[in-house]
Amino acid sequence: MEVIESVHAMQEKAEALRLKGYTMGFVPTMGFLHEGHLELMRVAKRHCDILVVSIFVNPTQFGPDEDFEKYPRDMEGDMEKAEGVGTDILFVPGADDMYPQGFQSGVKVSDLTKKLCGISRPVHFDGVTTVVTKLFNAVKPDMAVFGQKDFQQLTVISRMVKDLNMDIRIIGVPTVRESDGLAMSSRNKYLTREERESALSLNASLEMAEAMFKKGERSAEKIREAVASFIKGHPFTEIDYVSLCDPDTLEEMDLLGEKNLLALAVKVGATRLIDNRVISGSA
Amino acid sequence: MEVIESVHAMQEKAEALRLKGYTMGFVPTMGFLHEGHLELMRVAKRHCDILVVSIFVNPTQFGPDEDFEKYPRDMEGDMEKAEGVGTDILFVPGADDMYPQGFQSGVKVSDLTKKLCGISRPVHFDGVTTVVTKLFNAVKPDMAVFGQKDFQQLTVISRMVKDLNMDIRIIGVPTVRESDGLAMSSRNKYLTREERESALSLNASLEMAEAMFKKGERSAEKIREAVASFIKGHPFTEIDYVSLCDPDTLEEMDLLGEKNLLALAVKVGATRLIDNRVISGSA
Repeated sequence: MEVIESVHAMQEKAEALRLKGYTMGFVPTMGFLHEGHLELMRVAKRHCDILVVSIFVNPTQFGPDEDFEKYPRDMEGDMEKAEGVGTDILFVPGADDMYPQGFQSGVKVSDLTKKLCGISRPVHFDGVTTVVTKLFNAVKPDMAVFGQKDFQQLTVISRMVKDLNMDIRIIGVPTVRESDGLAMSSRNKYLTREERESALSLNASLEMAEAMFKKGERSAEKIREAVASFIKGHPFTEIDYVSLCDPDTLEEMDLLGEKNLLALAVKVGATRLIDNRVISGSA
Repeated sequence: MEVIESVHAMQEKAEALRLKGYTMGFVPTMGFLHEGHLELMRVAKRHCDILVVSIFVNPTQFGPDEDFEKYPRDMEGDMEKAEGVGTDILFVPGADDMYPQGFQSGVKVSDLTKKLCGISRPVHFDGVTTVVTKLFNAVKPDMAVFGQKDFQQLTVISRMVKDLNMDIRIIGVPTVRESDGLAMSSRNKYLTREERESALSLNASLEMAEAMFKKGERSAEKIREAVASFIKGHPFTEIDYVSLCDPDTLEEMDLLGEKNLLALAVKVGATRLIDNRVISGSA
């Protein structure tokens, strides 16, 4: 595994590889890698010749009161894990290289970013689309792989790629869960044992909602209420949103259709967790 | 000369050419080509193996009261001219291909776009940076060539390319003028004979300002006033701005330094014209 630390060196490497006809797959991460990230890497590796993984804790996608400073980091462990799944190039740019003096450009997706997490995290997605554009331009991949756990992020990036004619195939990978159902996240590390117990209510409520749908319930309001009430029954939880929306437009629904996104954001103690499930089936 | 009409076909062509090791130079235009455009193409052609020219009258860089509808078009003449200077690929995407249903993404450069033309044309540069990003992603050039006549555009695009890690070399080309000094522009076509006479005051005022500088004048205010007063002495003119600013930051200056941008926007009759000159030299 080669480690590249500057944007310029990454671009030179990418050009050399592309000239040789290699296809490149890319998994951008903020590090503190867990099994969810590793699954993205395995999927990317299956689709391409060269796997590039980036680690960059991007300051611009954190709000002023969010956890940028204390976001968990473990470069040594990350390198071992990335190499273990066959990463060819680990791209670890520095903040000065990514955001030089006078930096003032951004990429914005307008409508999709105003919904769900965009309501309580108003600058988050602008930071994500801007840094992902920069990383794409540095790595020049043929394809990039993102987790469906960050469903809105995947939707926003897919829209950006289409709108801006980025010639990159975006692949979404199903959420990887702990054996007890908790969606894997670097932020799970923040949870106390009791909080972690309560956090299981997120996935449990998604399963409950799917069961309601399968039994014929089509009222979005009834499902949202049942989910919210279920989660509230667990200590330390504070709901940010329970959304039942169209998976493409993220518009809230009244009546469920064939394909519906149930998406949650819940604070458990001081830790904000998200989870989601696409609930689908005909009537 | 090959004519390509879809983004997808352009990307496939670009990939095939890059795999063969060809370097690609790009000149994006809105068509109605004049000697200024042709000069950009000649410069690009000297720097690369394959010259790609695009023609796309981009609706999003025109304000609601601007001249999108009546912007002059001449596809047949343009094709002949582009081919005449050695264009290899003419890229003519359709508006539906560039702005599909649900389009909602944009690229924005913040500070530089608020100055000079950005004051009276508040949406213009967002349209430019977004469409140029899209064209870059379609054409995948090694270098792109822009005219210094649109000095702020060149500055904004250079900033965007640097900020977003676009691996494209940006080359600026000096303004091409008519024999009487009028900067070439597709919009010159709108001028009546009398207006055209008055329009010569733009370039004449730039020369006057440079002469003042060479004689030792360093007060930006005095030069701005002299320029404005000179232009106002010509019929049909209405000044939008006379700016004396730093060519990199576009910040207005009080005292001139070694390198200074004098930039003008003036309505002559109903036609808005711009011109500029970098005035430089030590004291």
